[in-house]
Amino acid sequence: MSERIWTAALAVIGDEILSGRTQDRNIAQLATWLNAQGIRLAEVRVVPDRTDAIVEAVNILRSRNDYLFTTGGIGPTHDDITVDAIAAALNVEVVVHPQARAALEAHYATRGGLTDARLRMARVPQGADLIVNRMSGAPGIKVANIFILAGVPHIAAGMLDALTGTLEGGRPLVSHQIGCWTAESEVADVLRDAEKAHPGVAIGSYPFFREGRVGANFVIRATDPALVDACVAALTRALTDTGREVVEGGI
Amino acid sequence: MSERIWTAALAVIGDEILSGRTQDRNIAQLATWLNAQGIRLAEVRVVPDRTDAIVEAVNILRSRNDYLFTTGGIGPTHDDITVDAIAAALNVEVVVHPQARAALEAHYATRGGLTDARLRMARVPQGADLIVNRMSGAPGIKVANIFILAGVPHIAAGMLDALTGTLEGGRPLVSHQIGCWTAESEVADVLRDAEKAHPGVAIGSYPFFREGRVGANFVIRATDPALVDACVAALTRALTDTGREVVEGGI
Repeated sequence: MSERIWTAALAVIGDEILSGRTQDRNIAQLATWLNAQGIRLAEVRVVPDRTDAIVEAVNILRSRNDYLFTTGGIGPTHDDITVDAIAAALNVEVVVHPQARAALEAHYATRGGLTDARLRMARVPQGADLIVNRMSGAPGIKVANIFILAGVPHIAAGMLDALTGTLEGGRPLVSHQIGCWTAESEVADVLRDAEKAHPGVAIGSYPFFREGRVGANFVIRATDPALVDACVAALTRALTDTGREVVEGGI
Repeated sequence: MSERIWTAALAVIGDEILSGRTQDRNIAQLATWLNAQGIRLAEVRVVPDRTDAIVEAVNILRSRNDYLFTTGGIGPTHDDITVDAIAAALNVEVVVHPQARAALEAHYATRGGLTDARLRMARVPQGADLIVNRMSGAPGIKVANIFILAGVPHIAAGMLDALTGTLEGGRPLVSHQIGCWTAESEVADVLRDAEKAHPGVAIGSYPFFREGRVGANFVIRATDPALVDACVAALTRALTDTGREVVEGGI
């Protein structure tokens, strides 16, 4: 039985990531959230705050994935051009969303009022819906299959929280980790054979150096929990048969 | 005087990043290192361990940037397909590099010898040079304008260290940070005006919430240090004139 796989892409928008100033945290955060929705993060691009670069990434990523997420560039300053670039990609106008305007008016009522700069955060591509932001002024935006999130990770997390359970997806990806105090190069054959023997499973091998010793963790992933269990059992047996101790859950 | 800008792209290769298992650290690490070489990180893609995805990313990124870096997928296991994919992208054979083979033989002499799996790490696209790896078995690889690095951040760091000063670049990007305890939306006009008045400068605005207050840091970037200084002085004056206290170095 073949299974529909739902995929999403992420466009991280921001010179601060490309300059090395800011360590991205949204890739891992979105990936983890998507797994729980039964959607696979298929590809990521980090693009600068430049309209042509954003338009190029948005158009290819939204067309070949079920969903596209973006992070960054939705604040009130001159370098926040995400909304305009996505409207350009979709070939629609930018309009002020009345509900966003009202939310910003309420948010800034006790904070100096709604200035022109702040009103920028109520601008959306025509036809868009809002994604609730309980933490700060600017709401997230949903338009077509695009989800426009904040760049600040804890604000993006709040927006993802608001979206939980609302996206159509497949079965969540299940993963199981085991570990060995062994060089991964010594068990490469065992890993390859276990993966081949269990179609639908992907085995990742993650070597490390710790406490002066080499080791590796192996992550077994599939959408079918029974298949993951079978592969974990087979791989554990094969590793044990070669005299290695397998650490359940990883090292 | 117009200045040649040198750019690099990064392809992060690895299901472990897209699955959320591993938090990427190579983007920020490479960006910072490139800045010091006078090269700008222009774009990043994160792609899965799949040949077609790697080939697509490698070919577009290497053709429109001076340099392409890749991280990940150069170990001994079945999911390490970077070398084969890049050889496919370049349309060259994969060969065993004699010097890499010798290095692996020496490394594994006291660690169980050179198995077939380990010998995989001596495979390179035809015509490639090696990048020294003092930390573990597999060397990095330089072929055409592509630099193939390890995925483990401290091993990648060692390879970058070996490359320091060997790449042609332009003037390093200079940046200077100042901060204010103010909502960025209140100073959006001031920032935009300062950027417009100093062509060649980019000002990034990075808001935060801390100790129950809102604030923002502003990063002024250019290749000309005098231009950065002039813009910092003008922006500081403009912020001070509106009654704000400017924190030198940022908050």
